[in-house]
Amino acid sequence: MSRWKPDARGRLEKAAMELYDDKGFDATTVAEIAARAGVTERTFYRHFVDKREVLFQPNALADVLAHATVTAADPLAPLEVITHALIEAAPVFEERAELVRQRQAVIAANPELQERERAKLASLVSTLDRALQERGLDSATAALAAEIGIAAFKVAFERWIDDPDQHTLARHIRETLDATRHLTARPVRSPAQAR
Amino acid sequence: MSRWKPDARGRLEKAAMELYDDKGFDATTVAEIAARAGVTERTFYRHFVDKREVLFQPNALADVLAHATVTAADPLAPLEVITHALIEAAPVFEERAELVRQRQAVIAANPELQERERAKLASLVSTLDRALQERGLDSATAALAAEIGIAAFKVAFERWIDDPDQHTLARHIRETLDATRHLTARPVRSPAQAR
Repeated sequence: MSRWKPDARGRLEKAAMELYDDKGFDATTVAEIAARAGVTERTFYRHFVDKREVLFQPNALADVLAHATVTAADPLAPLEVITHALIEAAPVFEERAELVRQRQAVIAANPELQERERAKLASLVSTLDRALQERGLDSATAALAAEIGIAAFKVAFERWIDDPDQHTLARHIRETLDATRHLTARPVRSPAQAR
Repeated sequence: MSRWKPDARGRLEKAAMELYDDKGFDATTVAEIAARAGVTERTFYRHFVDKREVLFQPNALADVLAHATVTAADPLAPLEVITHALIEAAPVFEERAELVRQRQAVIAANPELQERERAKLASLVSTLDRALQERGLDSATAALAAEIGIAAFKVAFERWIDDPDQHTLARHIRETLDATRHLTARPVRSPAQAR
Protein backbone atom coordinates (compact mmCIF):
# COMPACT_ATOMS: atom_id res chain seq x y z
CA MET A 1 0.00 0.00 0.00
CA SER A 2 2.98 2.27 0.56
CA ARG A 3 3.41 2.52 -3.22
CA TRP A 4 -0.04 4.01 -3.72
CA LYS A 5 0.13 7.72 -4.56
CA PRO A 6 -2.52 10.30 -5.31
CA ASP A 7 -3.58 10.54 -8.94
CA ALA A 8 -2.32 7.09 -9.79
CA ARG A 9 -4.98 6.96 -12.49
CA GLY A 10 -3.64 10.05 -14.21
CA ARG A 11 -0.07 8.73 -14.10
CA LEU A 12 -1.20 5.36 -15.44
CA GLU A 13 -2.92 7.02 -18.37
CA LYS A 14 0.11 9.13 -19.17
CA ALA A 15 2.48 6.15 -18.87
CA ALA A 16 0.24 3.95 -21.02
CA MET A 17 -0.09 6.53 -23.76
CA GLU A 18 3.69 7.07 -23.90
CA LEU A 19 4.36 3.35 -24.10
CA TYR A 20 1.66 2.72 -26.72
CA ASP A 21 3.15 5.53 -28.74
CA ASP A 22 6.77 4.31 -28.35
CA LYS A 23 6.42 0.54 -28.57
CA GLY A 24 2.99 0.13 -30.11
CA PHE A 25 -0.18 -0.92 -28.32
CA ASP A 26 0.23 -4.66 -28.89
CA ALA A 27 3.80 -4.82 -27.59
CA THR A 28 3.05 -2.94 -24.36
CA THR A 29 2.30 -4.91 -21.18
CA VAL A 30 0.34 -3.86 -18.11
CA ALA A 31 3.46 -4.56 -16.05
CA GLU A 32 5.39 -1.98 -18.06
CA ILE A 33 2.64 0.61 -17.71
CA ALA A 34 2.48 0.10 -13.97
CA ALA A 35 6.27 0.27 -13.61
CA ARG A 36 6.50 3.51 -15.57
CA ALA A 37 3.70 5.03 -13.50
CA GLY A 38 5.45 3.92 -10.29
CA VAL A 39 2.57 1.74 -9.10
CA THR A 40 1.84 -1.98 -8.83
CA GLU A 41 -0.02 -4.00 -11.45
CA ARG A 42 -2.72 -4.44 -8.86
CA THR A 43 -3.17 -0.66 -8.78
CA PHE A 44 -3.50 -0.65 -12.58
CA TYR A 45 -6.31 -3.18 -12.34
CA ARG A 46 -8.02 -1.13 -9.65
CA HIS A 47 -8.46 1.60 -12.30
CA PHE A 48 -8.75 -0.26 -15.61
CA VAL A 49 -10.07 -3.65 -16.72
CA ASP A 50 -7.29 -4.03 -19.28
CA LYS A 51 -4.84 -2.02 -21.35
CA ARG A 52 -7.46 -1.26 -23.98
CA GLU A 53 -9.76 0.42 -21.48
CA VAL A 54 -7.15 3.12 -20.93
CA LEU A 55 -7.92 4.25 -24.49
CA PHE A 56 -11.68 3.76 -24.34
CA GLN A 57 -12.75 5.06 -20.96
CA PRO A 58 -16.32 5.99 -20.40
CA ASN A 59 -16.42 9.77 -20.62
CA ALA A 60 -18.97 12.55 -20.37
CA LEU A 61 -19.18 13.11 -24.14
CA ALA A 62 -22.41 11.23 -24.86
CA ASP A 63 -24.19 12.72 -21.83
CA VAL A 64 -23.11 16.29 -22.57
CA LEU A 65 -24.01 15.91 -26.24
CA ALA A 66 -27.48 14.51 -25.49
CA HIS A 67 -28.25 17.11 -22.83
CA ALA A 68 -27.09 20.06 -24.95
CA THR A 69 -29.08 18.76 -27.94
CA VAL A 70 -32.31 18.46 -26.00
CA THR A 71 -31.96 21.83 -24.26
CA ALA A 72 -30.58 24.00 -27.11
CA ALA A 73 -32.43 27.30 -27.57
CA ASP A 74 -35.27 27.41 -30.04
CA PRO A 75 -35.81 27.68 -33.03
CA LEU A 76 -32.65 26.28 -34.62
CA ALA A 77 -32.00 24.28 -37.76
CA PRO A 78 -30.94 20.66 -37.03
CA LEU A 79 -27.31 21.30 -37.91
CA GLU A 80 -27.30 24.41 -35.71
CA VAL A 81 -28.57 22.34 -32.79
CA ILE A 82 -25.80 19.83 -33.43
CA THR A 83 -23.15 22.53 -33.75
CA HIS A 84 -24.26 23.98 -30.42
CA ALA A 85 -24.22 20.57 -28.74
CA LEU A 86 -20.79 19.61 -30.13
CA ILE A 87 -19.32 22.92 -28.95
CA GLU A 88 -20.79 22.32 -25.49
CA ALA A 89 -19.08 18.91 -25.51
CA ALA A 90 -15.72 20.21 -26.78
CA PRO A 91 -14.22 20.76 -23.28
CA VAL A 92 -14.33 16.98 -22.72
CA PHE A 93 -11.40 16.90 -25.20
CA GLU A 94 -9.93 20.40 -24.78
CA GLU A 95 -9.23 19.79 -21.10
CA ARG A 96 -6.89 16.89 -21.88
CA ALA A 97 -5.70 17.89 -25.32
CA GLU A 98 -2.22 16.35 -25.07
CA LEU A 99 -3.48 12.94 -23.96
CA VAL A 100 -6.18 13.06 -26.65
CA ARG A 101 -3.60 13.76 -29.36
CA GLN A 102 -1.37 10.91 -28.18
CA ARG A 103 -4.39 8.64 -28.06
CA GLN A 104 -5.32 9.42 -31.66
CA ALA A 105 -1.79 8.62 -32.82
CA VAL A 106 -1.95 5.26 -31.03
CA ILE A 107 -5.33 4.45 -32.57
CA ALA A 108 -4.23 5.54 -36.05
CA ALA A 109 -1.42 2.95 -35.85
CA ASN A 110 -3.66 -0.01 -34.97
CA PRO A 111 -6.53 -1.36 -37.14
CA GLU A 112 -8.17 -3.20 -34.25
CA LEU A 113 -8.32 -0.02 -32.19
CA GLN A 114 -9.70 1.84 -35.20
CA GLU A 115 -12.57 -0.63 -35.31
CA ARG A 116 -13.30 0.05 -31.66
CA GLU A 117 -13.17 3.80 -32.34
CA ARG A 118 -15.61 3.47 -35.24
CA ALA A 119 -17.98 1.52 -32.98
CA LYS A 120 -17.78 4.36 -30.45
CA LEU A 121 -18.65 6.93 -33.13
CA ALA A 122 -21.58 4.75 -34.26
CA SER A 123 -22.90 4.74 -30.70
CA LEU A 124 -22.60 8.56 -30.63
CA VAL A 125 -24.77 8.68 -33.77
CA SER A 126 -27.47 6.72 -31.89
CA THR A 127 -27.20 9.01 -28.86
CA LEU A 128 -27.58 12.12 -31.02
CA ASP A 129 -30.42 10.55 -33.02
CA ARG A 130 -32.41 9.87 -29.84
CA ALA A 131 -31.74 13.35 -28.45
CA LEU A 132 -32.90 15.02 -31.68
CA GLN A 133 -36.11 12.99 -31.60
CA GLU A 134 -36.63 13.99 -27.97
CA ARG A 135 -36.40 17.57 -29.20
CA GLY A 136 -39.33 16.92 -31.52
CA LEU A 137 -37.55 16.06 -34.79
CA ASP A 138 -39.18 13.34 -36.90
CA SER A 139 -37.24 10.07 -36.93
CA ALA A 140 -36.09 10.26 -40.58
CA THR A 141 -34.64 13.75 -40.17
CA ALA A 142 -33.13 12.90 -36.80
CA ALA A 143 -31.35 9.83 -38.21
CA LEU A 144 -29.92 11.80 -41.12
CA ALA A 145 -28.92 14.82 -39.02
CA ALA A 146 -27.20 12.56 -36.48
CA GLU A 147 -25.15 10.77 -39.19
CA ILE A 148 -24.21 14.05 -40.86
CA GLY A 149 -23.43 15.75 -37.55
CA ILE A 150 -21.09 13.02 -36.33
CA ALA A 151 -19.43 12.78 -39.78
CA ALA A 152 -18.71 16.53 -39.59
CA PHE A 153 -17.52 16.18 -35.99
CA LYS A 154 -15.08 13.45 -37.04
CA VAL A 155 -13.56 15.81 -39.61
CA ALA A 156 -13.49 18.74 -37.15
CA PHE A 157 -11.79 16.52 -34.58
CA GLU A 158 -9.12 15.39 -37.07
CA ARG A 159 -8.49 19.00 -38.09
CA TRP A 160 -8.09 19.98 -34.44
CA ILE A 161 -5.70 17.08 -33.76
CA ASP A 162 -3.51 18.06 -36.72
CA ASP A 163 -3.80 21.85 -36.40
CA PRO A 164 -0.30 23.40 -36.26
CA ASP A 165 -1.90 26.67 -35.04
CA GLN A 166 -3.61 24.90 -32.14
CA HIS A 167 -6.96 26.62 -32.60
CA THR A 168 -9.67 25.36 -30.26
CA LEU A 169 -11.80 22.35 -31.04
CA ALA A 170 -14.87 24.59 -30.68
CA ARG A 171 -13.57 26.76 -33.50
CA HIS A 172 -12.91 23.74 -35.74
CA ILE A 173 -16.41 22.46 -35.02
CA ARG A 174 -17.99 25.77 -36.02
CA GLU A 175 -15.86 26.07 -39.18
CA THR A 176 -16.47 22.47 -40.26
CA LEU A 177 -20.22 22.66 -39.74
CA ASP A 178 -20.26 25.95 -41.70
CA ALA A 179 -18.24 24.29 -44.47
CA THR A 180 -20.80 21.46 -44.54
CA ARG A 181 -23.46 23.99 -45.52
CA HIS A 182 -21.25 25.24 -48.36
CA LEU A 183 -20.85 21.75 -49.86
CA THR A 184 -24.10 22.32 -51.71
CA ALA A 185 -22.96 25.62 -53.20
CA ARG A 186 -19.28 25.79 -54.06
CA PRO A 187 -18.51 24.89 -57.68
CA VAL A 188 -16.05 22.10 -58.36
CA ARG A 189 -13.59 22.38 -61.21
CA SER A 190 -13.13 19.43 -63.51
CA PRO A 191 -9.62 17.99 -63.88
CA ALA A 192 -9.47 19.60 -67.34
CA GLN A 193 -10.16 23.06 -65.95
CA ALA A 194 -7.88 22.54 -62.99
CA ARG A 195 -4.85 21.98 -65.18
CA MET B 1 -16.41 -32.87 -61.17
CA SER B 2 -19.82 -34.21 -62.16
CA ARG B 3 -21.38 -32.20 -59.35
CA TRP B 4 -20.20 -28.90 -60.76
CA LYS B 5 -23.04 -26.88 -62.26
CA PRO B 6 -23.24 -23.51 -63.91
CA ASP B 7 -23.71 -20.56 -61.56
CA ALA B 8 -22.55 -22.50 -58.51
CA ARG B 9 -21.39 -19.18 -57.11
CA GLY B 10 -24.87 -17.68 -57.29
CA ARG B 11 -26.41 -20.71 -55.64
CA LEU B 12 -23.77 -20.67 -52.90
CA GLU B 13 -24.53 -17.04 -52.15
CA LYS B 14 -28.25 -17.64 -51.98
CA ALA B 15 -27.82 -20.73 -49.79
CA ALA B 16 -25.42 -18.92 -47.45
CA MET B 17 -27.70 -15.92 -47.03
CA GLU B 18 -30.71 -18.12 -46.23
CA LEU B 19 -28.75 -20.12 -43.66
CA TYR B 20 -27.20 -17.01 -42.04
CA ASP B 21 -30.69 -15.56 -41.80
CA ASP B 22 -32.28 -18.74 -40.37
CA LYS B 23 -29.56 -20.06 -38.04
CA GLY B 24 -27.36 -17.03 -37.56
CA PHE B 25 -23.97 -16.43 -39.14
CA ASP B 26 -21.91 -18.01 -36.35
CA ALA B 27 -23.90 -21.26 -36.29
CA THR B 28 -23.71 -21.86 -40.04
CA THR B 29 -20.97 -24.11 -41.44
CA VAL B 30 -19.46 -24.18 -44.90
CA ALA B 31 -20.58 -27.81 -45.19
CA GLU B 32 -24.19 -26.77 -44.71
CA ILE B 33 -23.91 -23.98 -47.26
CA ALA B 34 -22.40 -26.33 -49.83
CA ALA B 35 -25.04 -29.01 -49.16
CA ARG B 36 -27.91 -26.57 -49.57
CA ALA B 37 -26.39 -25.25 -52.81
CA GLY B 38 -25.93 -28.81 -54.08
CA VAL B 39 -22.16 -28.57 -54.46
CA THR B 40 -19.12 -29.88 -52.61
CA GLU B 41 -17.24 -27.96 -49.93
CA ARG B 42 -14.36 -27.88 -52.34
CA THR B 43 -16.53 -25.96 -54.79
CA PHE B 44 -17.39 -23.48 -52.03
CA TYR B 45 -13.67 -22.86 -51.45
CA ARG B 46 -13.11 -22.41 -55.17
CA HIS B 47 -15.36 -19.32 -54.95
CA PHE B 48 -14.87 -17.98 -51.42
CA VAL B 49 -12.02 -17.94 -48.90
CA ASP B 50 -14.41 -18.44 -45.98
CA LYS B 51 -18.03 -17.97 -44.99
CA ARG B 52 -17.48 -14.31 -44.17
CA GLU B 53 -16.29 -13.52 -47.68
CA VAL B 54 -19.75 -14.40 -49.02
CA LEU B 55 -20.97 -11.25 -47.24
CA PHE B 56 -17.99 -9.06 -48.07
CA GLN B 57 -17.15 -9.80 -51.67
CA PRO B 58 -15.15 -7.34 -53.63
CA ASN B 59 -17.66 -5.50 -55.78
CA ALA B 60 -17.68 -2.75 -58.37
CA LEU B 61 -18.97 -0.09 -55.95
CA ALA B 62 -15.68 1.65 -55.18
CA ASP B 63 -14.59 1.67 -58.83
CA VAL B 64 -17.91 2.97 -60.14
CA LEU B 65 -18.05 5.61 -57.41
CA ALA B 66 -14.53 6.84 -58.10
CA HIS B 67 -14.96 6.91 -61.86
CA ALA B 68 -18.34 8.72 -61.73
CA THR B 69 -16.91 11.26 -59.27
CA VAL B 70 -13.93 12.11 -61.44
CA THR B 71 -15.93 12.32 -64.68
CA ALA B 72 -19.12 14.10 -63.46
CA ALA B 73 -20.17 17.04 -65.63
CA ASP B 74 -18.99 20.46 -64.62
CA PRO B 75 -19.62 22.74 -62.72
CA LEU B 76 -21.29 20.99 -59.79
CA ALA B 77 -21.28 21.56 -56.04
CA PRO B 78 -19.40 18.82 -54.14
CA LEU B 79 -22.59 17.22 -52.84
CA GLU B 80 -24.06 17.26 -56.36
CA VAL B 81 -20.99 15.43 -57.66
CA ILE B 82 -21.42 12.86 -54.90
CA THR B 83 -25.15 12.49 -55.55
CA HIS B 84 -24.42 11.86 -59.22
CA ALA B 85 -21.71 9.31 -58.41
CA LEU B 86 -23.84 7.45 -55.85
CA ILE B 87 -26.73 7.23 -58.32
CA GLU B 88 -24.35 5.84 -60.95
CA ALA B 89 -23.27 3.23 -58.41
CA ALA B 90 -26.82 2.34 -57.30
CA PRO B 91 -27.25 -0.53 -59.85
CA VAL B 92 -24.50 -2.46 -58.00
CA PHE B 93 -27.16 -2.94 -55.30
CA GLU B 94 -30.40 -2.62 -57.32
CA GLU B 95 -29.46 -5.57 -59.49
CA ARG B 96 -29.36 -7.92 -56.52
CA ALA B 97 -31.82 -6.22 -54.22
CA GLU B 98 -33.12 -9.34 -52.53
CA LEU B 99 -29.68 -10.69 -51.66
CA VAL B 100 -28.64 -7.24 -50.46
CA ARG B 101 -31.66 -6.99 -48.13
CA GLN B 102 -30.97 -10.46 -46.69
CA ARG B 103 -27.33 -9.53 -46.25
CA GLN B 104 -28.21 -6.40 -44.26
CA ALA B 105 -30.46 -8.41 -41.95
CA VAL B 106 -27.62 -10.87 -41.32
CA ILE B 107 -25.18 -8.05 -40.60
CA ALA B 108 -27.63 -6.21 -38.33
CA ALA B 109 -27.80 -9.34 -36.15
CA ASN B 110 -24.03 -9.69 -35.66
CA PRO B 111 -21.77 -7.07 -33.98
CA GLU B 112 -18.60 -8.51 -35.50
CA LEU B 113 -20.04 -8.24 -39.02
CA GLN B 114 -21.15 -4.70 -38.24
CA GLU B 115 -17.54 -3.83 -37.46
CA ARG B 116 -16.47 -5.21 -40.81
CA GLU B 117 -19.24 -3.24 -42.53
CA ARG B 118 -18.13 -0.01 -40.83
CA ALA B 119 -14.57 -0.68 -42.01
CA LYS B 120 -15.88 -1.07 -45.56
CA LEU B 121 -17.74 2.24 -45.35
CA ALA B 122 -14.58 3.90 -44.00
CA SER B 123 -12.66 2.65 -47.01
CA LEU B 124 -15.39 4.08 -49.30
CA VAL B 125 -14.83 7.46 -47.63
CA SER B 126 -11.13 7.25 -48.60
CA THR B 127 -12.00 6.26 -52.17
CA LEU B 128 -14.39 9.19 -52.55
CA ASP B 129 -11.95 11.59 -50.90
CA ARG B 130 -9.22 10.70 -53.40
CA ALA B 131 -11.62 10.95 -56.37
CA LEU B 132 -12.81 14.40 -55.28
CA GLN B 133 -9.22 15.58 -55.01
CA GLU B 134 -8.52 14.18 -58.46
CA ARG B 135 -11.41 16.33 -59.63
CA GLY B 136 -9.60 19.40 -58.32
CA LEU B 137 -11.16 19.82 -54.89
CA ASP B 138 -8.80 20.98 -52.11
CA SER B 139 -7.98 18.26 -49.58
CA ALA B 140 -9.92 19.80 -46.65
CA THR B 141 -13.14 20.12 -48.66
CA ALA B 142 -12.68 16.69 -50.25
CA ALA B 143 -12.25 15.02 -46.84
CA LEU B 144 -15.37 16.69 -45.46
CA ALA B 145 -17.49 16.10 -48.57
CA ALA B 146 -16.48 12.42 -48.62
CA GLU B 147 -17.46 11.90 -44.96
CA ILE B 148 -20.75 13.75 -45.41
CA GLY B 149 -21.51 11.97 -48.70
CA ILE B 150 -20.99 8.47 -47.31
CA ALA B 151 -22.93 9.36 -44.14
CA ALA B 152 -25.87 10.41 -46.33
CA PHE B 153 -25.45 7.30 -48.49
CA LYS B 154 -25.62 5.11 -45.39
CA VAL B 155 -28.96 6.68 -44.46
CA ALA B 156 -30.28 6.45 -48.05
CA PHE B 157 -29.27 2.80 -48.16
CA GLU B 158 -31.06 2.02 -44.88
CA ARG B 159 -34.17 3.82 -46.11
CA TRP B 160 -34.10 1.78 -49.32
CA ILE B 161 -33.65 -1.51 -47.42
CA ASP B 162 -36.63 -0.73 -45.18
CA ASP B 163 -38.85 0.92 -47.80
CA PRO B 164 -42.28 -0.79 -47.86
CA ASP B 165 -43.00 0.98 -51.18
CA GLN B 166 -39.82 -0.42 -52.79
CA HIS B 167 -38.78 2.86 -54.39
CA THR B 168 -35.42 2.69 -56.14
CA LEU B 169 -32.13 3.24 -54.33
CA ALA B 170 -31.41 6.05 -56.79
CA ARG B 171 -34.54 7.87 -55.64
CA HIS B 172 -33.61 7.43 -51.96
CA ILE B 173 -30.13 8.75 -52.68
CA ARG B 174 -31.51 11.87 -54.36
CA GLU B 175 -34.06 12.50 -51.60
CA THR B 176 -31.55 11.96 -48.80
CA LEU B 177 -28.93 14.22 -50.35
CA ASP B 178 -31.62 16.88 -50.86
CA ALA B 179 -32.70 16.48 -47.24
CA THR B 180 -29.06 16.98 -46.19
CA ARG B 181 -29.19 20.45 -47.70
CA HIS B 182 -32.33 21.24 -45.71
CA LEU B 183 -30.70 20.34 -42.39
CA THR B 184 -29.34 23.87 -42.24
CA ALA B 185 -32.74 25.46 -42.83
CA ARG B 186 -35.66 23.64 -41.30
CA PRO B 187 -36.58 24.92 -37.84
CA VAL B 188 -36.64 22.46 -34.97
CA ARG B 189 -39.37 22.62 -32.35
CA SER B 190 -38.40 22.36 -28.71
CA PRO B 191 -40.04 19.56 -26.69
CA ALA B 192 -42.24 22.22 -25.02
CA GLN B 193 -43.55 23.43 -28.39
CA ALA B 194 -43.97 19.91 -29.73
CA ARG B 195 -46.42 18.98 -27.02
